[in-house]
Amino acid sequence: MDVFIEPIGRLINEFSKLPGVGKKTAQRYAYKVISMTEGEARAFADAILDAKHKVRFCKICGNFSEDEVCGVCRTRTAEQICVVKEPKDVIALEKLHEYRGVYHVLHGVISPMNGVGPDDIRIKELLSRVKDGVQEVILATNPDVEGEATALYIAKLIKPLGVKVTRIAHGIPIGSELEYTDEVTLARALSDRKEL
Amino acid sequence: MDVFIEPIGRLINEFSKLPGVGKKTAQRYAYKVISMTEGEARAFADAILDAKHKVRFCKICGNFSEDEVCGVCRTRTAEQICVVKEPKDVIALEKLHEYRGVYHVLHGVISPMNGVGPDDIRIKELLSRVKDGVQEVILATNPDVEGEATALYIAKLIKPLGVKVTRIAHGIPIGSELEYTDEVTLARALSDRKEL
Repeated sequence: MDVFIEPIGRLINEFSKLPGVGKKTAQRYAYKVISMTEGEARAFADAILDAKHKVRFCKICGNFSEDEVCGVCRTRTAEQICVVKEPKDVIALEKLHEYRGVYHVLHGVISPMNGVGPDDIRIKELLSRVKDGVQEVILATNPDVEGEATALYIAKLIKPLGVKVTRIAHGIPIGSELEYTDEVTLARALSDRKEL
Repeated sequence: MDVFIEPIGRLINEFSKLPGVGKKTAQRYAYKVISMTEGEARAFADAILDAKHKVRFCKICGNFSEDEVCGVCRTRTAEQICVVKEPKDVIALEKLHEYRGVYHVLHGVISPMNGVGPDDIRIKELLSRVKDGVQEVILATNPDVEGEATALYIAKLIKPLGVKVTRIAHGIPIGSELEYTDEVTLARALSDRKEL
């Protein structure tokens, strides 16, 4: 006899597929589900199916959306376009309530090692958007090798169109200490120093 | 505009109800669900509903079961009954592949502070099982105040029936060090010492 009866074993297996969830944690989650009321379990299952069915990508910017065009594209002017790797980066930026422009989600970055070329991400779509009256393109891909390369590649394509291209600043995170900052970041913070 | 569109926000909220899951982790799980295929999301939702619908409690021992009587009660003789607090304790013990007797799940422990008396947990059911030819009752409630009190209470009821009553051993966990063992455990390990 298996230690877990089939429905519990199967649920543990499903929870194990979530990022960072091991057998032990999956087990705790499964017990929690079993202790839920009928209605709570139904609401949980429905939320999973709804997220899968109702969430699609905005046809303009590629962000998560319930409709064909997302709330950001519907309500803001496209004078500034902030280019990010993934839809979750849009959420991270939106949480700031600072930026009032629109976004462009690449859905990936150029990564020759993984066989991802410029045509595999939404660069063409970005270029076609830049043509109509855009004043600035902010490149907000991650500050890693692939994110940097992708930003440089896009900058090269957009600059000739006469549009201002900027890159988000790299440097020492607010609240951290010089002593514990890695060398690459510290060197970058020094070379990118700003006159006060 | 809210930062999350409704189906994502709702799924994050559902995941936040799992034990030890905060907003940030719930967000990661939600993104994972969105990136699943239709079939994967369906399998996940079904596993939740199935665990809720198909898992009930064995009418004899109170363990998780798909049928009226669980696999343990169906296939083993009831010479030894191991008494535990919750169904998940049965799973922990079954994983050892050591114990070949049956179980009795109390579904709680006596806890006057929380208004749980002897009649609120499955003690009556245990006593009625002890009557038919049982040789030993092993009390395996947790080694905390409530678990100890419950074990003592049950022992007092069962001993007069002429059945051997044992309590799982308390002491220093294998692999740990004397120096770092708490005082109560260390005192217990000393007083419960065994002749070699």
